[in-house]
Amino acid sequence: MDICREILDKTRRARPLVHFITNSVTATDCANITLAAGGSPIMADDPGEAADITQICSALVLNMGTPSERTFKSMLEAGKEAGKLGRPVIFDPVGVGASAFRNEIAATLLREVRFTVIKGNVSEIRYLTEGNASVTGVDAPLDALSTEDNLTGHVRLAQRLAARTNAVVAISGPIDIVADSRDAWAIRNGHPMMAGVTGTGCMSAAVIATYAGANPRVPLPSCVCALSAMGVCGELAQQRLLSVGGGTGTYRALLMDAMSTLDGATLAAASKTVHLSFS
Amino acid sequence: MDICREILDKTRRARPLVHFITNSVTATDCANITLAAGGSPIMADDPGEAADITQICSALVLNMGTPSERTFKSMLEAGKEAGKLGRPVIFDPVGVGASAFRNEIAATLLREVRFTVIKGNVSEIRYLTEGNASVTGVDAPLDALSTEDNLTGHVRLAQRLAARTNAVVAISGPIDIVADSRDAWAIRNGHPMMAGVTGTGCMSAAVIATYAGANPRVPLPSCVCALSAMGVCGELAQQRLLSVGGGTGTYRALLMDAMSTLDGATLAAASKTVHLSFS
Amino acid sequence: MDICREILDKTRRARPLVHFITNSVTATDCANITLAAGGSPIMADDPGEAADITQICSALVLNMGTPSERTFKSMLEAGKEAGKLGRPVIFDPVGVGASAFRNEIAATLLREVRFTVIKGNVSEIRYLTEGNASVTGVDAPLDALSTEDNLTGHVRLAQRLAARTNAVVAISGPIDIVADSRDAWAIRNGHPMMAGVTGTGCMSAAVIATYAGANPRVPLPSCVCALSAMGVCGELAQQRLLSVGGGTGTYRALLMDAMSTLDGATLAAASKTVHLSFS
Repeated sequence: MDICREILDKTRRARPLVHFITNSVTATDCANITLAAGGSPIMADDPGEAADITQICSALVLNMGTPSERTFKSMLEAGKEAGKLGRPVIFDPVGVGASAFRNEIAATLLREVRFTVIKGNVSEIRYLTEGNASVTGVDAPLDALSTEDNLTGHVRLAQRLAARTNAVVAISGPIDIVADSRDAWAIRNGHPMMAGVTGTGCMSAAVIATYAGANPRVPLPSCVCALSAMGVCGELAQQRLLSVGGGTGTYRALLMDAMSTLDGATLAAASKTVHLSFS
Repeated sequence: MDICREILDKTRRARPLVHFITNSVTATDCANITLAAGGSPIMADDPGEAADITQICSALVLNMGTPSERTFKSMLEAGKEAGKLGRPVIFDPVGVGASAFRNEIAATLLREVRFTVIKGNVSEIRYLTEGNASVTGVDAPLDALSTEDNLTGHVRLAQRLAARTNAVVAISGPIDIVADSRDAWAIRNGHPMMAGVTGTGCMSAAVIATYAGANPRVPLPSCVCALSAMGVCGELAQQRLLSVGGGTGTYRALLMDAMSTLDGATLAAASKTVHLSFS
Repeated sequence: MDICREILDKTRRARPLVHFITNSVTATDCANITLAAGGSPIMADDPGEAADITQICSALVLNMGTPSERTFKSMLEAGKEAGKLGRPVIFDPVGVGASAFRNEIAATLLREVRFTVIKGNVSEIRYLTEGNASVTGVDAPLDALSTEDNLTGHVRLAQRLAARTNAVVAISGPIDIVADSRDAWAIRNGHPMMAGVTGTGCMSAAVIATYAGANPRVPLPSCVCALSAMGVCGELAQQRLLSVGGGTGTYRALLMDAMSTLDGATLAAASKTVHLSFS
């Protein structure tokens, strides 16, 4: 998609500062992929400074992978501050549906914060939309992933949540879906090896925030291009892995390599995004 | 050992969900090795959800590498819940003996939680068994590692703790020891390079939990095979490092590569495990 | 610099235990680089044990990358304990100037703890010295980095903070500066790729602590050699990257490789350090 070139090039010029309130498991990878995508990360999850840090940043990521009362409070304060300032806020409701604690945090955040993008796997988005889901942890169950067969249903799911929240909604999977209440895109980039590395979903949200932080007026294209960029990097890493050999450890480094060396022209040429029409 | 083939193959089919309450330093590596070993990790360390998350998981890891009051409370609640449900609970008493705080946490957990496996280096296991040790941090002092010379004494140490706790006890080192009150195994896999990467001990506990989660009726063989698998992967990574060159950074990725590509037949053929008889 | 050989060799023999109270984003990398540099890391950030852990360690690192009330309290107690025992304490004031919360933590620590080394980027050191700075996050703004043009001004900045605190002050950048109130050194090692990996600044502080822990009587040369070692490893990693190909993911592993295989003779030969004279 041609706009991906413009979005990535602008991101690398602007070097947006991205504020993360995120889980302790994938924070390092999120920081590194933010640098690789052209941004500058700052992780600050204490209520004593959350809103202050949001003020100096171009985008905010709220990821509830390892929730606690302390970071929940920070998420609320930072989220409200970003809303006042009109900054993009990306919500990654990791594991929602897996515990009452996460469900209550997610419900409160959805009520109190105006999200620009909500990104999850299909179980998480289903839970947020319908209030129930066959959640089995933080990884999506294999039988629930978006494929050609269930694509239409998943797009409608995303659009229902988009209509209710006014956010762009992204469902990650073998086919990524990005939708607002009117439009929807399918992204057919990526590789199954990505599911063998923890945090590729969190990293996708980091790239969305980095692109949207540098291109705040076009959140939907920013989100489509970010998920396409992650997918393209997943493919490039797999091609490279075939020549050097190895497993998920090497693949993890190659994924980062691909993001850090990706240029707009390569992304625009390799992205497989389709605008979906329903009536 | 032939049973290793069965245990690993069953793990990859079952894809057990493993709940970790663990330290912030090695959480990423533990999550990645769990995926590599065939499981699916979920890190959740808040009392607000710890027991709820345990309910949906096949195994639980309690690792006290960076203890706090908050995560200690979570460990207690999750540990008790796992006990009620009969799920394997793996205890990694990182750094016990290094502070009164850790000693009290370990003592309380041992009193309140029924552990399936307790895994530590020899200093940690000695502290839990005898109440004193020459602890010098989270890495075992070199002069205390299990070798052919002190093997019998270390096996007896493991068996004393096993008899008292009804847990399988594992002592990691150049020779790994796994024992319950009647049986003992020595595992002569591994490579000294593993000590150059932080968290290989924590990762061993993650593999034990993944195997035991998929094979809950045979915790002792699961533990023997898991430590053998870690050791075999340490050897495979070292062989590969000799051909590609590098140091501990590359070795860390190669170790993960080896675990993610390990199959049951390779493990069964390469594992060097010996059943020990004493009388 | 010849003394670097002696300092590194002594570090590898002594294997100093280093206590970290640090951020959750780069803790893994700090632990791994400590092992690679010849030390043994222990991360312990709870007030329940912070001072106890400091007692068994050779050096202490206080890094405020992700500050909270809990870890701030631990920093104060561990810092005071290290002072009583005469152990080197390294302060890494990550992101000071970015929020009132960080500013207050830094001010209290500077008042209550006797630091051996204070290491930051130029924005952070300027904030600590002058009380204001154009802080834009945890990465230094590009236009503020030390170069040949502004070197004299930055050295004077470091020396003012050194005179006030009695600490060795290090400013990291394309040219690293290390100064006490009388002496100053410029280190012209390193590579721009290092800024593409999160935590290289935190890792520098880890190496300083490891070297200073093994050589507590010569903190200024330990600091110069540590920053030179990081820079030399950054150069070696880049040379290797040119032959194997890749981006920041591979570079991150190669940087660790270089530190783990660095010997004193190589470091002494490759370090580009200059004693600066002003009058």
